[in-house]
Amino acid sequence: MSRKFEQLKEILGEVSDLGTAASLLGWDQNVSMPPAGGEARGQQLATLGKIAQEKFISDEVGMLLEDLKNEFDPSSDEADMLRVAARNYAKAKRVPSEFIAEQAIVTTKAFDAWVEAKGKSDFSIFQPYLEKVVELVQRYVSFFPPADHPYDTLLDDYEPGMKTSEVHEIFNALRPKQVNLIKQISSAKQVKDNFLHKKYNEKKVWDFSETIITRFGYDWNRGRQDKAPHPFETAFSVNDVRITNRFEKDNPLATLFSAMHESGHAMYEQGINPAFDRTPLSGGTSLAVHESQSRMWENLVGRSLPFWEHFFPQIKKLFPSQLDGVSVKSFYKAINKVEPSLIRVNADEATYNLHIMLRLELEIGMVDGSMKVKDLPEIWNTKMREYLGITPPNDAQGVLQDVHWSGGSIGYFSTYALGNLVSAQLWEKINKDIKNLDDQIRAGKFDELLHWLHEKIHIYGHKYDPQVLVQKVTGSKIDPAAYVRYLTKKYSEIYGL
Amino acid sequence: MSRKFEQLKEILGEVSDLGTAASLLGWDQNVSMPPAGGEARGQQLATLGKIAQEKFISDEVGMLLEDLKNEFDPSSDEADMLRVAARNYAKAKRVPSEFIAEQAIVTTKAFDAWVEAKGKSDFSIFQPYLEKVVELVQRYVSFFPPADHPYDTLLDDYEPGMKTSEVHEIFNALRPKQVNLIKQISSAKQVKDNFLHKKYNEKKVWDFSETIITRFGYDWNRGRQDKAPHPFETAFSVNDVRITNRFEKDNPLATLFSAMHESGHAMYEQGINPAFDRTPLSGGTSLAVHESQSRMWENLVGRSLPFWEHFFPQIKKLFPSQLDGVSVKSFYKAINKVEPSLIRVNADEATYNLHIMLRLELEIGMVDGSMKVKDLPEIWNTKMREYLGITPPNDAQGVLQDVHWSGGSIGYFSTYALGNLVSAQLWEKINKDIKNLDDQIRAGKFDELLHWLHEKIHIYGHKYDPQVLVQKVTGSKIDPAAYVRYLTKKYSEIYGL
Repeated sequence: MSRKFEQLKEILGEVSDLGTAASLLGWDQNVSMPPAGGEARGQQLATLGKIAQEKFISDEVGMLLEDLKNEFDPSSDEADMLRVAARNYAKAKRVPSEFIAEQAIVTTKAFDAWVEAKGKSDFSIFQPYLEKVVELVQRYVSFFPPADHPYDTLLDDYEPGMKTSEVHEIFNALRPKQVNLIKQISSAKQVKDNFLHKKYNEKKVWDFSETIITRFGYDWNRGRQDKAPHPFETAFSVNDVRITNRFEKDNPLATLFSAMHESGHAMYEQGINPAFDRTPLSGGTSLAVHESQSRMWENLVGRSLPFWEHFFPQIKKLFPSQLDGVSVKSFYKAINKVEPSLIRVNADEATYNLHIMLRLELEIGMVDGSMKVKDLPEIWNTKMREYLGITPPNDAQGVLQDVHWSGGSIGYFSTYALGNLVSAQLWEKINKDIKNLDDQIRAGKFDELLHWLHEKIHIYGHKYDPQVLVQKVTGSKIDPAAYVRYLTKKYSEIYGL
Repeated sequence: MSRKFEQLKEILGEVSDLGTAASLLGWDQNVSMPPAGGEARGQQLATLGKIAQEKFISDEVGMLLEDLKNEFDPSSDEADMLRVAARNYAKAKRVPSEFIAEQAIVTTKAFDAWVEAKGKSDFSIFQPYLEKVVELVQRYVSFFPPADHPYDTLLDDYEPGMKTSEVHEIFNALRPKQVNLIKQISSAKQVKDNFLHKKYNEKKVWDFSETIITRFGYDWNRGRQDKAPHPFETAFSVNDVRITNRFEKDNPLATLFSAMHESGHAMYEQGINPAFDRTPLSGGTSLAVHESQSRMWENLVGRSLPFWEHFFPQIKKLFPSQLDGVSVKSFYKAINKVEPSLIRVNADEATYNLHIMLRLELEIGMVDGSMKVKDLPEIWNTKMREYLGITPPNDAQGVLQDVHWSGGSIGYFSTYALGNLVSAQLWEKINKDIKNLDDQIRAGKFDELLHWLHEKIHIYGHKYDPQVLVQKVTGSKIDPAAYVRYLTKKYSEIYGL
């Protein structure tokens, strides 16, 4: 390898180390930091971010990238490293550092305003701050060459190479089918799930969540699960990939599904080629592909009948009184109950994507100026009625429910829905390659499944862009058909449609 | 304030943030990191250290320090910040970055060799690595202008302004008195402490340790106590100062004294002027002054009779069977039992300093070349006989017991003993200022004591050098007389000398 490449790798490695250190500071903030530690922590994170940015967009990096452009065989990992680094570099160079500083200030204030507005369920408190955020986002878009749609620029940050028109096309094909499915379900006989909301012992649930993900193949030698306000996954190297979880008294078994979800993210990170650590190819290739892994373990595995045919006897033994008289079939139905509801994070599989589509439309409207921030509450409520047939009683349970916009994260939401679609596409392919997968799951065996994901997805890290990877593995780009087939089959059986 | 000063403060603030981030990575390594995470963590720490060093010794910092030399009133905090920064800068500039890189490699290998050598109790495994470490330390000394003694240069890194001759003078005055005291004790009637080594419930001991330090005034809103292989204190700002602790089955109540010790360090850090955060005046002024705080809370408070007159009923209620038939007096005697022993960290107050003096003589011998590394085991054992009347049965319990030398930390040990001396000097002064301190302690009240320490010591952070601070507060420099008076009085009572 050339000396220049080694030199570049060393700088990018240092940039990566700074980012990793910042991630650990963030993890600590959620898991361990004492209450008063926040102000200094914000300062420490700002410093690490600033130095990493300066180091990355230095002229030295620019010249090395230029010099190394044609150095390697295009199919080599080195060429992909350079390609991804050059793309990130070109993007980062376009954004002035004063803009980044301004953004940090605006979003910090917007976050505080959002917390207050949500607490008081009063959108007018948040409105002027969201207006500033939108103005910043539009300014951000203006730093880049014009795209087909201004929203393309934002989407590209989360889902490299994805276009707004593609997402529209996918969602337009998906929406009527999901809306129709929900209508059918709502006129069918409803399932009973009262036993899910009884009192469950926290420690027992927590330990059982660890039993399940241990069986999945989450490697505790390279990870841990801690309590935090929200479940999330974070990686400090391929050998240190942690998850967090929480326990909600009124929804006690959600802890199990959160652990499955976050371990899905974590097993992705644990499976990436260790040689990619400290390079631009580390980490998953995109949010949607990441979400395809977490949703697969949570839903396609963890909310399936074969899964519970294996684990139900265990949970029943742990909670005999709570699950007295409950059969595995009725438990399976209960954890898959469909109920149009107000809050995205609590939504079931049948309704979840509609929450996302609603947000996408509002985001596009904000960015291209076709919707005014002050009108968002009304637009939100109208669309909730249209898609899900319910009206939020207040803004806290409506337009104010998610934190994302206060932080300037516009363009992020679609990846949640796209991840669902990819999970189903992969699932069809996996079931072709592993003929008796259901039997394996029924026997509590997941090693062949994890091995498949490892070989086809995980190992590549960021080497392939998401659409390239999905095409390579499934033979087609991201497409809603498999997901619609999956949902229809599953819910037809559950609700006898 | 001048623009240049703001500019310098900003750079020094960033250097401090990088150091703080590294400290958090270190804390995590001890408290949370999964087993496989070590290699990447080492890399992250190396990057943070390298960038902080580069940033600090930049020409920009040098020019700003030069320009600002006479900018402020010498008694101002700003002038002290500049003075300390300029001293650290001048030191850092003398050490070539290749030397730092070489040192990192040598000490990493030396640490591994030490672990193996200690495990096998075979000094010959460690010897060649320690020889390299000593060679490096001598080279380090050579980067600095000649001092009265080469050891001065090393000592100055841990105890700014302290000279080898001063330490010698102090220790020479102290040694015969401590040796004589131990001789007297060994011929007196021995105290019984078997009840301290019964089986104690870990959680109850841990919780009781937190009860005690809460009463001391350790602020949990700005701290936390976690389990780690070794007790230590670490600060990420004045508002986030954490301690760790451990539980040893064969010495269960050591957890209480470790908590008192580490909370002493932590209350020092929590009490520093918040305006000094992210400046060279943050943190304690020296290791000895730091140790004076930890040893004061652990020993002068926590191993005193008034303290246990308050807390003994509580611990007896927690452990009625273990402490059945034990009186507060016999408990007090047991936790102060004097017994010349092989291991420094387990040594009692009467013998502890002798362990330090032995190490100091060996360190000086290594650095000035008057002792050869290969002869250290024999020299160690001879001195153990001379000072404590016992001979280590093997090197693991002798010359190999401490980790410090493997990491190149030569010059550190004396600060432990100096801290003991300072704690007694402060204690005499405090008892003049707070007439009924014993009564307050007997009533479980520590707020006036903590307030005194806060006003006289903590608040100043690194503003005054250690000898200046001790002089300012007690009227004399570091001096062994108070400690000798303290030990003699305490042990005369306990052993009826």
